[in-house]
Amino acid sequence: MVRALEWIDEASALRIIDQTVLPTSECYFNITDVDALVEAIVSLAVRGAPALGATGAFGVVIAMNQAAAQGWDEARLQSEVDRIRNARPTAVNLAWGVDQARCLMAQGVGAVLARAKAVMAEDEAANRALSKLGADWILQRCGKPQVSVVTHCNTGALATAGWGTAYGIIHELFDRGALLLAYADETRPLLQGARLTGWELAQDGIPFVIEADGAASSTILNGRVDVAIIGADRIVANGDSANKVGSVALALACQRKGIPFIVAAPFSTVDLTIATGDEIAIEERDQKEVLEFATVRTSPAGAIGFNPAFDVTPHDLISAIVTERGVVEPSRPGSSLAGLAN
Amino acid sequence: MVRALEWIDEASALRIIDQTVLPTSECYFNITDVDALVEAIVSLAVRGAPALGATGAFGVVIAMNQAAAQGWDEARLQSEVDRIRNARPTAVNLAWGVDQARCLMAQGVGAVLARAKAVMAEDEAANRALSKLGADWILQRCGKPQVSVVTHCNTGALATAGWGTAYGIIHELFDRGALLLAYADETRPLLQGARLTGWELAQDGIPFVIEADGAASSTILNGRVDVAIIGADRIVANGDSANKVGSVALALACQRKGIPFIVAAPFSTVDLTIATGDEIAIEERDQKEVLEFATVRTSPAGAIGFNPAFDVTPHDLISAIVTERGVVEPSRPGSSLAGLAN
Repeated sequence: MVRALEWIDEASALRIIDQTVLPTSECYFNITDVDALVEAIVSLAVRGAPALGATGAFGVVIAMNQAAAQGWDEARLQSEVDRIRNARPTAVNLAWGVDQARCLMAQGVGAVLARAKAVMAEDEAANRALSKLGADWILQRCGKPQVSVVTHCNTGALATAGWGTAYGIIHELFDRGALLLAYADETRPLLQGARLTGWELAQDGIPFVIEADGAASSTILNGRVDVAIIGADRIVANGDSANKVGSVALALACQRKGIPFIVAAPFSTVDLTIATGDEIAIEERDQKEVLEFATVRTSPAGAIGFNPAFDVTPHDLISAIVTERGVVEPSRPGSSLAGLAN
Repeated sequence: MVRALEWIDEASALRIIDQTVLPTSECYFNITDVDALVEAIVSLAVRGAPALGATGAFGVVIAMNQAAAQGWDEARLQSEVDRIRNARPTAVNLAWGVDQARCLMAQGVGAVLARAKAVMAEDEAANRALSKLGADWILQRCGKPQVSVVTHCNTGALATAGWGTAYGIIHELFDRGALLLAYADETRPLLQGARLTGWELAQDGIPFVIEADGAASSTILNGRVDVAIIGADRIVANGDSANKVGSVALALACQRKGIPFIVAAPFSTVDLTIATGDEIAIEERDQKEVLEFATVRTSPAGAIGFNPAFDVTPHDLISAIVTERGVVEPSRPGSSLAGLAN
């Protein structure tokens, strides 16, 4: 399995694959100081909410090692840890991961490192557990031994501490001999589907094709797939789910075709403090992402780009929300996310 | 108004804007021989079904002029005309346009040129007529003085002999002071929306933004637009309409939101010999279009691209089909395309 990050004990280093140059180049680098770590986070060399959680936890180890080597005082050490924590202010998992490790600093670097490794292991374990639940649910619902699937964006090992969420279900289906073909949307504007999911699928030997995002609806309507599976950036109390922009198009086509639409995420993605998707703020990213690609300008000079990063799929379009704690069917009465919280 | 092609009497030349280099470069060239014309068609320097119709008709003039200058015999002349006619075998309008002019060759080049100019004028007249009908329909249905719209691919002056179809309606709304903002989908894989529609909107001074195709569904669901307007490559007897891949995603979102979804095309696009959209063959284009962009590889080595060029929107998702002969509402009993044929 591909790994976005890995702790190298011999080198006391966090080994990261540079996701900005995939899939044309496969570059790794070992991070042993805070500057390099912050640069890797800001440049998106490492990205994906769960992957950033583990990165933040290991970042505390890196800062403590650097403090010991360079004789930083406590104030300097804390300010460097803050710098890691704030490298991407909107990534809540990054701050969460830092905090998981930071609270153990008084117990020494060994305790912090053990906690960081646990954060990573727990995320992977959750992903593997939800992947089995998701594969079970899909095969039972579809009632056939093999299925084809469509997915959007990247939710694999590269986006997590290991294994993946929606991608993890696809991988699980493949391992069971139950996957015919995966359709991966290229996922404009940043092409995480073509670049990252495509690379993971190739690495894992899973049969796949890449399609333009606009092709997903007819792929579903024409009966080419049995199910759509996506990840989530935030799932709120009523089941409305925010994910990479373009996701809701798949949900609408699945409803029309009468096939299941699945949202897969660790339970930590569920935010019961928000009632409905209407209250989820949608980040608008730099318009340049839409107006150009790989430094090639695609739009006329002076054009304005509209670049929402996410969309919200209403819960009535979601057949199942798959977490490591269980599967919730939002449109079925009595099946609620709050029931999994206890 | 932008023109994809224009006949220059003084030079006996067809002046074409090179659509392959828009919007970063604005290049025109005058075509006076068959080789250059075929090259322009094959390279997509000139494209769009109605634009190719007029191009084919002018092509007969170009071949006759070259025959006179170079002393071709009748067999050579006819074979050169065939070469134009077959430059893009799937573009039915190209052959149709050649045939419109070819049947007048015995009457001399003056008669042929007059017919070619008429083909061009008739297409533009049809587009202007359907644009008024479409704008009337939208403003009445929406019941407000100004609307925002979303469109997909390029249906403007560049795709036609003049003015445009879906784009023509947007232009007409703008000229009436009834347009707030146009959302143009970039339209992967060939980016006709970002490159060509964006350029036309900028040239015409119409307020617009470019968005990734995946953003269109949430743009509609979030109430940013009042109507979606697209063109068509083929409309069959029951109203099912084939258009650039990604179109049906807009239709599904419009149905969910309860706003109108409009298909605009000259009546020549209607094919009453086909009963339903299930019988429309969907062209699959070169997979490289999906796997790379502007020579930049976006997918891993060995990846397979799935690249359907069109999708079919079922008639029950279409609020109105707007032609120069009138507006048909496919989901309304008694409103049929066949009724416009007579």
